Amino acid sequence: MAAGKGTRMKSPRPKVLHKLGGRALVARVLDTASGVGARHVVVVTGHGADQVEADIAADFAAMAPRFARQMPQLGTGHAVQQAVPLLPDDGMVLVLSGDVPLIAEDTLRALIAAADGERLALLTIEFDDPTGYGRILRAPDSGRVLAIVEQKDADATQRAVREVYSGIMAVPARLLKPWLARLDNRNAQGEYYLTDIVGFATGDGVPVVAHRIDDAAQVAGVNSPAQLAALERTLQLRQADALMAAGVRLLDPARFDLRGTLDCGTDVEIDVNCVFEGAVSLGDGVRIGPNCVIANVRIEAGAVIHPFTHIDGERAGATVGPGALVGPFARLRPGAQLGAGVHIGNFVEVKNSTLAAGAKANHLAYLGDATVGERVNYGAGSITANYDGANKHRTVIGDDVHVGSNCVLVAPITIGAGGTVGGGSTVSKSTEAGALTVARARQVSFANWQRPQKKKP
Amino acid sequence: MAAGKGTRMKSPRPKVLHKLGGRALVARVLDTASGVGARHVVVVTGHGADQVEADIAADFAAMAPRFARQMPQLGTGHAVQQAVPLLPDDGMVLVLSGDVPLIAEDTLRALIAAADGERLALLTIEFDDPTGYGRILRAPDSGRVLAIVEQKDADATQRAVREVYSGIMAVPARLLKPWLARLDNRNAQGEYYLTDIVGFATGDGVPVVAHRIDDAAQVAGVNSPAQLAALERTLQLRQADALMAAGVRLLDPARFDLRGTLDCGTDVEIDVNCVFEGAVSLGDGVRIGPNCVIANVRIEAGAVIHPFTHIDGERAGATVGPGALVGPFARLRPGAQLGAGVHIGNFVEVKNSTLAAGAKANHLAYLGDATVGERVNYGAGSITANYDGANKHRTVIGDDVHVGSNCVLVAPITIGAGGTVGGGSTVSKSTEAGALTVARARQVSFANWQRPQKKKP
Amino acid sequence: MAAGKGTRMKSPRPKVLHKLGGRALVARVLDTASGVGARHVVVVTGHGADQVEADIAADFAAMAPRFARQMPQLGTGHAVQQAVPLLPDDGMVLVLSGDVPLIAEDTLRALIAAADGERLALLTIEFDDPTGYGRILRAPDSGRVLAIVEQKDADATQRAVREVYSGIMAVPARLLKPWLARLDNRNAQGEYYLTDIVGFATGDGVPVVAHRIDDAAQVAGVNSPAQLAALERTLQLRQADALMAAGVRLLDPARFDLRGTLDCGTDVEIDVNCVFEGAVSLGDGVRIGPNCVIANVRIEAGAVIHPFTHIDGERAGATVGPGALVGPFARLRPGAQLGAGVHIGNFVEVKNSTLAAGAKANHLAYLGDATVGERVNYGAGSITANYDGANKHRTVIGDDVHVGSNCVLVAPITIGAGGTVGGGSTVSKSTEAGALTVARARQVSFANWQRPQKKKP
Repeated sequence: MAAGKGTRMKSPRPKVLHKLGGRALVARVLDTASGVGARHVVVVTGHGADQVEADIAADFAAMAPRFARQMPQLGTGHAVQQAVPLLPDDGMVLVLSGDVPLIAEDTLRALIAAADGERLALLTIEFDDPTGYGRILRAPDSGRVLAIVEQKDADATQRAVREVYSGIMAVPARLLKPWLARLDNRNAQGEYYLTDIVGFATGDGVPVVAHRIDDAAQVAGVNSPAQLAALERTLQLRQADALMAAGVRLLDPARFDLRGTLDCGTDVEIDVNCVFEGAVSLGDGVRIGPNCVIANVRIEAGAVIHPFTHIDGERAGATVGPGALVGPFARLRPGAQLGAGVHIGNFVEVKNSTLAAGAKANHLAYLGDATVGERVNYGAGSITANYDGANKHRTVIGDDVHVGSNCVLVAPITIGAGGTVGGGSTVSKSTEAGALTVARARQVSFANWQRPQKKKP
Repeated sequence: MAAGKGTRMKSPRPKVLHKLGGRALVARVLDTASGVGARHVVVVTGHGADQVEADIAADFAAMAPRFARQMPQLGTGHAVQQAVPLLPDDGMVLVLSGDVPLIAEDTLRALIAAADGERLALLTIEFDDPTGYGRILRAPDSGRVLAIVEQKDADATQRAVREVYSGIMAVPARLLKPWLARLDNRNAQGEYYLTDIVGFATGDGVPVVAHRIDDAAQVAGVNSPAQLAALERTLQLRQADALMAAGVRLLDPARFDLRGTLDCGTDVEIDVNCVFEGAVSLGDGVRIGPNCVIANVRIEAGAVIHPFTHIDGERAGATVGPGALVGPFARLRPGAQLGAGVHIGNFVEVKNSTLAAGAKANHLAYLGDATVGERVNYGAGSITANYDGANKHRTVIGDDVHVGSNCVLVAPITIGAGGTVGGGSTVSKSTEAGALTVARARQVSFANWQRPQKKKP
Repeated sequence: MAAGKGTRMKSPRPKVLHKLGGRALVARVLDTASGVGARHVVVVTGHGADQVEADIAADFAAMAPRFARQMPQLGTGHAVQQAVPLLPDDGMVLVLSGDVPLIAEDTLRALIAAADGERLALLTIEFDDPTGYGRILRAPDSGRVLAIVEQKDADATQRAVREVYSGIMAVPARLLKPWLARLDNRNAQGEYYLTDIVGFATGDGVPVVAHRIDDAAQVAGVNSPAQLAALERTLQLRQADALMAAGVRLLDPARFDLRGTLDCGTDVEIDVNCVFEGAVSLGDGVRIGPNCVIANVRIEAGAVIHPFTHIDGERAGATVGPGALVGPFARLRPGAQLGAGVHIGNFVEVKNSTLAAGAKANHLAYLGDATVGERVNYGAGSITANYDGANKHRTVIGDDVHVGSNCVLVAPITIGAGGTVGGGSTVSKSTEAGALTVARARQVSFANWQRPQKKKP
């Protein structure tokens, strides 16, 4: 169910497309559905349906989800009524909420097991304050589930019940379909409640079972930015705990953000206030300093990322070789491929460039569209002029080249292996191996020069 | 009341001038007093009076506050005795503490309403541990307030009372003035207690009412750096909650700091660990990346601020145009005016410069005192040399100019529209529109050059 | 005792060498032992013994610790059996755990006092959930300690006891030695329990006393990354509290990290999310902006460190002079010595360089191995080329020199006092005082130049 507007989000973005841990709420639910082996996925859309359907279709092509539009939106029963014609008559129907993102696979498996092919199984939870939720009414003697009563239809005794329905159920399709046909909207809200099928089930002698969990986060819905932020922290702490249990040392689990996947080797240490996005892998013994933003990169064993480093390989990816040192204040962009022991220092940007083992660019430099050989020393302030205003060109720097400070290498150009480029040179023609190349004006001094004077305002 | 020393602050700065959310404690109290329509404001000063008075006079000129110096400091009653001669005989007197900064306007309005022009109204609160506070003694039967007894003068039964006086009261001036004249200092502290007027009121048959609130933060005083830090977090979380309720998405409300005002359009998202200062406005759909410091700037719709960006427009202000991209590792300084779709990339500093729509400075550059035309591409490592050692001069770069890498533009200078400046050029004379300008030495190579050898230490 | 493997740490590093607040767990314990005047220190090693012993020997040479290897590891009693032959027969033996890092000196002093030269003194604590800990069994009437019973050997009544043994004891050596000889391993674990000596003591009529503390952190052990992270936060908050009590203003104590020592003058303010390492001192009135990493530096009175500043003096140290302004986005490296009122601005790196009073390097610059005179203005983008590919050389810039933008100063070189270097110059020969020096090619323009065209892909 992904039709809701999310008024309290106060955003033009459909609610289920808001992101938790970097992934849309509904995508997290579909990931979980996929994880439990859902065969037919129907997404009930409504508000922002075009955008929701487009995003899901693009993201879950392999799952071939179908969409049922619910317009107008006349309640949860009405929502499921739109979806059910697209489902086969056999098998179990799992009703999930697109804005309840942290439901776990093992919970759903347990719920399906509880339904056991022939029962209606409700996922429930006890709240200290159940206000607003549908209460689970049980037979006083047997404890069997009799009904769910919505908040607005509940009397005082019913409102005192603390076990509530989570909005998630598993039910055999062959039972669900006829029940849906019997729903009506004669209630306080004037809506078709899916929960009325509980009464039909008991009337039909179909057992209703409640699978109760303790973990409130799994059934927490997102209705406001504050709820989204709270659930984000829950998710982040769980991810942090899982990483620590696997041996990753986090200096502060409350200041750790992972929006994607993070694969870690042994003996990895991550300092405070780092953000990870996309697909990141960290090899054995990697150290990540404080205040780094790291995305879409493979960082190999023994590499050290100093503070204030920004890496994002985006789609092209990026690699930091074994034992490399990066930062502080370094930026690696898509296609940065650093070999073993490479050093990238402060205020250095690397884009779409390969640096072979032992190359160094330690200060205030730009390497774009460059192929840099082994042991190259790329001087402070030097720039690859890779863009002529219309096209990008490649710079090739051979092994053991020493590029001086504040040089400009005007691409396309090759600096032959072992060559040297004098500081302050703008070089636009390729150079021979082993040559010293300079492009430098003669130094002239004028004695006793009078500086400009401060003008009177 | 702003006379206290704040010994535990261990700072030469007067206590009430310490800052909470970027604003002096006493200024927050005066803001609130102004918000409830205070007509005559008297600030009782003492420790650091010169500095306190100067700061307040400068900050609240429109309010025309007067100052009463309390020296020596002989208690709260003594403090109010200094102030009262400066107040008219009609109207309500509101006694506020300069070190209790989070008192809310609606609380004060309710307190004034409780006094209703003829009663003594005390603001009270219940604490689980009331140690150190003056206890509210009530008649056992009616519950009417009989007295406030200070901690040091209270017996065991009185100390068990959990309702305490907050230090804030509303009292008609015509009642307060004679009561103040009757205060004495015969008590454990040897001080003139303002709270003794409660006894006078009951003796005079003037009703004493307690307006009790639940929100401890509103009556929390600041006496130490730890209390200041705790109240800072309370304030920050409240500000974060208010922004989220208005639709702003904060990735972590516990890592958000606002020291000033933040106006947000719809669909604004702010990542972790950002600090906002001064007056900041964010247009619809603006994204602020993690670890940014943003002050005194207007950021327009759709702009994206990447991580590690530092913006401070200070008094001159700054503007980031619609759809602009800024950062990571960018710095915008006072007078930075970025048009629509401008890109400011890593290690780029912009000061007192206007960039027209579509202009780009993506890498390691400085733009100071410059006027940059539309679609200009300003090369990596290029610098406007705006300072001749004595005066600052302006650089004008026409529309569609392409400035190469590591150039120096020596101001005053104009690069004509559509022109190109070759990489590595230092340009000190203005150039014609459409021209290619270079200032570059000839490239010379020396074959088989012998590098310097490592010296033996 | 430092022999444990720390399986749940999932790290090749021996458990006791993991760091808390930047210092190895076992080093913290030894610091505390030293603080209470330990005369003979024996460290029981086992897993990773070579590394543990090497690290401790290097770090605590003055203490002359000795090592006893426990292989295999047959319990706590067995561990102490290895150590005791290295201890004299007189005096008190204090048994400490290498993975319980926050035990306080005053606690140990109180424990030793409780033993009073002739008793067995156990450090105990009450836990709401004592599961897993050895319970303290007391005589019902006198409350005297009778025994410690391990979790696995305890019956239901014993398991209900909430007072537990911390693993820390003080015991006279003359008593301990014969008791150790009597230990056996006839228990659920098949280990030699040190705690069995309690029974021997009561049997021998030696009083057993329990010194119970309330502070769980002092006896918390580190067995997993999660426990290490939790204890790290405890330590950091305690350090933050201590600094605040001394008058330091921390904008957020929960986002403050100190891994070393921080000496502060009066009126110091530290903004959010700063990390301090090594030995740092901050003079009166120093301000540290948000998101700074500050290590091994002395920052003098009135200096202001702007956001995103990285300072690490490492072994050489660094100094920031009184009233200096550093950052944002500045980096000071070992040997950076800034005089009074020096300005180091954005994207500027300083290494092994002295800047005299009033010198400025405000933008995108590198100063390495330089001696910079008073009031020097070092231009944007300028670089000291201190490395010729083999050796480092020194740059000397005289007082009042003005270096233009994007200059390269090729060391060894001296720029004479009062001299000026024109923007864009690469200067490789020393210059006279007062001279204007330029090394600049003539500016040439080509009218109506045709830009390269975008190639069709």
